[in-house]
Amino acid sequence: MMKKSPLAPKKITKLSPIDGIAFATASTGMKYKGRDDLLLVSFDCGAVVAGVFTSSKCSSAPVEWCRQILASNNLAQAVLVNAGNANAFTGKEGFEAMTSTIDAVSTSLECKPGAVYVASTGVIGETLDAQSINKHVKIAAKNLKQDHWHEAAKAILTTDTFEKTATRSARVADQTVTINGFAKGSGMIAPDMATMLSFIFTDAAIDQKTLQRILKDACDQSFNCITVDSDTSTSDTLLAFATGKDSIITDINNSILDDFKRAFNEVTLDLAHQIVRDGEGASKFITIDVSGAENDSAAKKIAMSIANSPLVKTAIAGEDANWGRIVMAVGKAGERAQRDHLIIRIGGQKVTENGHRIEGYDESKCNAHLKGTDIEITVDVGVADGKAKVWTCDLTHDYININADYRS
Amino acid sequence: MMKKSPLAPKKITKLSPIDGIAFATASTGMKYKGRDDLLLVSFDCGAVVAGVFTSSKCSSAPVEWCRQILASNNLAQAVLVNAGNANAFTGKEGFEAMTSTIDAVSTSLECKPGAVYVASTGVIGETLDAQSINKHVKIAAKNLKQDHWHEAAKAILTTDTFEKTATRSARVADQTVTINGFAKGSGMIAPDMATMLSFIFTDAAIDQKTLQRILKDACDQSFNCITVDSDTSTSDTLLAFATGKDSIITDINNSILDDFKRAFNEVTLDLAHQIVRDGEGASKFITIDVSGAENDSAAKKIAMSIANSPLVKTAIAGEDANWGRIVMAVGKAGERAQRDHLIIRIGGQKVTENGHRIEGYDESKCNAHLKGTDIEITVDVGVADGKAKVWTCDLTHDYININADYRS
Repeated sequence: MMKKSPLAPKKITKLSPIDGIAFATASTGMKYKGRDDLLLVSFDCGAVVAGVFTSSKCSSAPVEWCRQILASNNLAQAVLVNAGNANAFTGKEGFEAMTSTIDAVSTSLECKPGAVYVASTGVIGETLDAQSINKHVKIAAKNLKQDHWHEAAKAILTTDTFEKTATRSARVADQTVTINGFAKGSGMIAPDMATMLSFIFTDAAIDQKTLQRILKDACDQSFNCITVDSDTSTSDTLLAFATGKDSIITDINNSILDDFKRAFNEVTLDLAHQIVRDGEGASKFITIDVSGAENDSAAKKIAMSIANSPLVKTAIAGEDANWGRIVMAVGKAGERAQRDHLIIRIGGQKVTENGHRIEGYDESKCNAHLKGTDIEITVDVGVADGKAKVWTCDLTHDYININADYRS
Repeated sequence: MMKKSPLAPKKITKLSPIDGIAFATASTGMKYKGRDDLLLVSFDCGAVVAGVFTSSKCSSAPVEWCRQILASNNLAQAVLVNAGNANAFTGKEGFEAMTSTIDAVSTSLECKPGAVYVASTGVIGETLDAQSINKHVKIAAKNLKQDHWHEAAKAILTTDTFEKTATRSARVADQTVTINGFAKGSGMIAPDMATMLSFIFTDAAIDQKTLQRILKDACDQSFNCITVDSDTSTSDTLLAFATGKDSIITDINNSILDDFKRAFNEVTLDLAHQIVRDGEGASKFITIDVSGAENDSAAKKIAMSIANSPLVKTAIAGEDANWGRIVMAVGKAGERAQRDHLIIRIGGQKVTENGHRIEGYDESKCNAHLKGTDIEITVDVGVADGKAKVWTCDLTHDYININADYRS
C-alpha cells in the first residue's frame, strides 16, 4: 500500500456486528501479495437489496449481472468481491469466468445463483482467474465471521491508502437500527484500480422499493457529488442490504423513516468524503458550494465545472488564490450566470462582487486559508435560488506519479 | 519565455506582405519586460471581417465589444491586441479602459470606433492600464509596416513557448490569393495566460456572410477540435479579415471557392495543431480518430471524452499502452457504443475487437509507438457511420509546474 493520504481520518471507524451478516476474506494472490483481495459476504436469512451502478456505456460483466438480478427483486444471499482484476472488457470469457465464481458461491452457500451479487475492481481487459477464486470461495464459505468488518473493508481496496468505514444508528418506530458501510475508491470514479465500490448494510426492516429510493437519494447527495478527476469507471457499484424482516413501511414519505434516512445519508456522505480524502495524490479536501443558480441542476453543473477544472485544482495545489480561474470555470459550465452579480468567497473571505474584485481585497487572507488542508470555495451566480454542494481534491504531482506509472 | 516545447515545428513559417495590411508593435511593460506586448493592425482601405468567440458565460469586455461591432457589418479599420492583462471580470472600469484604448486607435488612425476590433489576453480581474496603452498606440500608428508579421505574431504571446504562424495560397477564379494567420494559446482553451487568440488575413474579395460561414466551418474542424485541459477562456477570439474589393461570390457552395476553402481550412488547422504542440507541459501530440458512432456529433463527444481524460493523458505521458482507460473514456462519454464491437488501435496496431483484447496482442509494439512524440489513437465504436478527429497533448508534471505556480 502507498503512503497514507495526508487527508485520511485520524481514526478508522469501528463497525459493530449486525445479526445475519457474516464475512470471510482470502488472499488469491492474483495481483497483490501479502494481503487479502477476495471478500465473501453471506446473509443467513437473506437481505432486501438495492443498487446503483455506473453510467458507463461499457460497463463490466459484474455490473451487468447485478443489474439483471436486482430486477428480479429476490432476496440477496451473498456478495462476492475481488480486487486486482475488474473483469471489464473481457468479452464472453470474462462473463463465463464470472458465472463460474457465482456458481461456486451458490454451491458453497446452498443458494440460487440469482441471489449472489458480484463486484470486481482492478485492471481492465484481463480475464478473471475463476479457478483460483473458486478454490478460495469454498474455504471462505466455511470461515464466515460476524465480527470481520475491517478485514472486509480492507480486502476490497486497490490504490486506496486507507480503508473507508462509516456507521450510524437510527430510530425507526420503537427500534434502534444500525447502518454500517464500507467503500473503496480513490479516483471518482476512475477506471483500473480506482473504481468506486461501496456496500451498505442495515438490520432495518424495509421493502425493496423504499430501500432503492433511499439509496438513490443518498447517492445523489453523496457519491454523485464527488469528483477526483472526472473519469467514470466501467465498474462503479453501490449496493445496500437490509436484513430486517416484516417491513410494514412502504411509503418513502412516512415520517417514521426520517431518522433512518438522515442516518443513511450520513453514512453515504461520510464514505464519499473519505473517497475524496483518498483521491489520488490529494493534498487538499475542497468543498465547492454554489448558490444563486437557475435551479439545483444548473448549480450542480457549475459546481462540477469548478471541481473538475484542472486549472482550479492546480491553483489550489499551489496554494494560490487564483480566483480568475473560478470565474473561468463558472463561465464554461454553460449555465446562466450573472457576471456582474457573481460573488466568490475563498475560506469565507469575499473576493468578488458586482463584476469585479472587491475594494480592498486582501489576498493574504485567502492564501492563508489555502495553506490548510480543508478548502472552502463559495460561489453565488446571482440568477435565482438553485444550489448545490460538491467535493473534490486538488491536482498534484502525485496524481501524475500514480497514473503515469500505474501498471509498470 | 519558457523553454521551447519539444513538439514545436522545426522552422517558423515566414509570412509575406498582403497589400493594405500593416502592423506595429510596442512594449508597454505592463507585465513582461524586454519584449513587445501590444499589437496594432491597420487596414488602409478597410477589411471585411468575420469572427468566432468564446462560449463562456463570463466573457471579457473585448469579446463583448467585438460581438457588438461585428453585428453592424461595417468594414474593419484596425485591430488592437494586448498581452499580459485579459481585461476580463473587471466590471465598468474595465469597459471604460477598453473604450479609452479604442478611442485612442480611432483618433490616431482617423476611423470610427466601431471599426476597431480589440482582444486582450493575460491575468483575469486586473483593470487595464489604458493610459500606458494609449501612449504607445499614438506612436505605433506612425510606425506601421507591411513586413512585420513575425513581430506581430510574437507580441500577442503569453505562456506560449513559440510564435504560431501559417500561410497558404489559393486560386479563386483566375487570381492567386494569400491567406496568412497567426495565433496564440497553450491551453485549449485555458484562462489567464492561455487564452486562444487567432487572426487570419487574406487579400481575397469575399462578402461578410460568406467569410463568416467559411470561418465558422474552418473553426469547427480545427480550433473546436483541440483540447489541452478542457478549460475554456473568457477571452477566446478568432477573427478573419479580407481586404479584397468587389466580391461577386456570395454563394458558399459555388465551386469557385473550393480551393480557397481548402487553403483556409489548412491555415486554421495548422495553427490549431501548433497550439496543441505548445500545450502547457506537452511532451506528446495526440491524434484521436473516432469512427462508427451514431453520428458525427456523437463521435466528437466520444473523441473529446478520450482527449480530456486525465487518466488517458497521464498514461500516454508515462508511455504506457493502458488501453483499458480508452475503454473507460468511451464508456463515460454517454454516447452509444457497442462494447462487443469496439476496435481500438494504438499507432495502427489493433488492440481490441469483439469485446476483448485481440489474440496474440503484442503490447511491446504499442509501447514502442508511445515512445515517439506523435501518437495515434483510433477507435471504432461499432454503431453507425459517425466520425470525428480531435487533437490533444499529454498531461505531465510540467503542466502542474506551470499551473500550480503561475502567478507567483
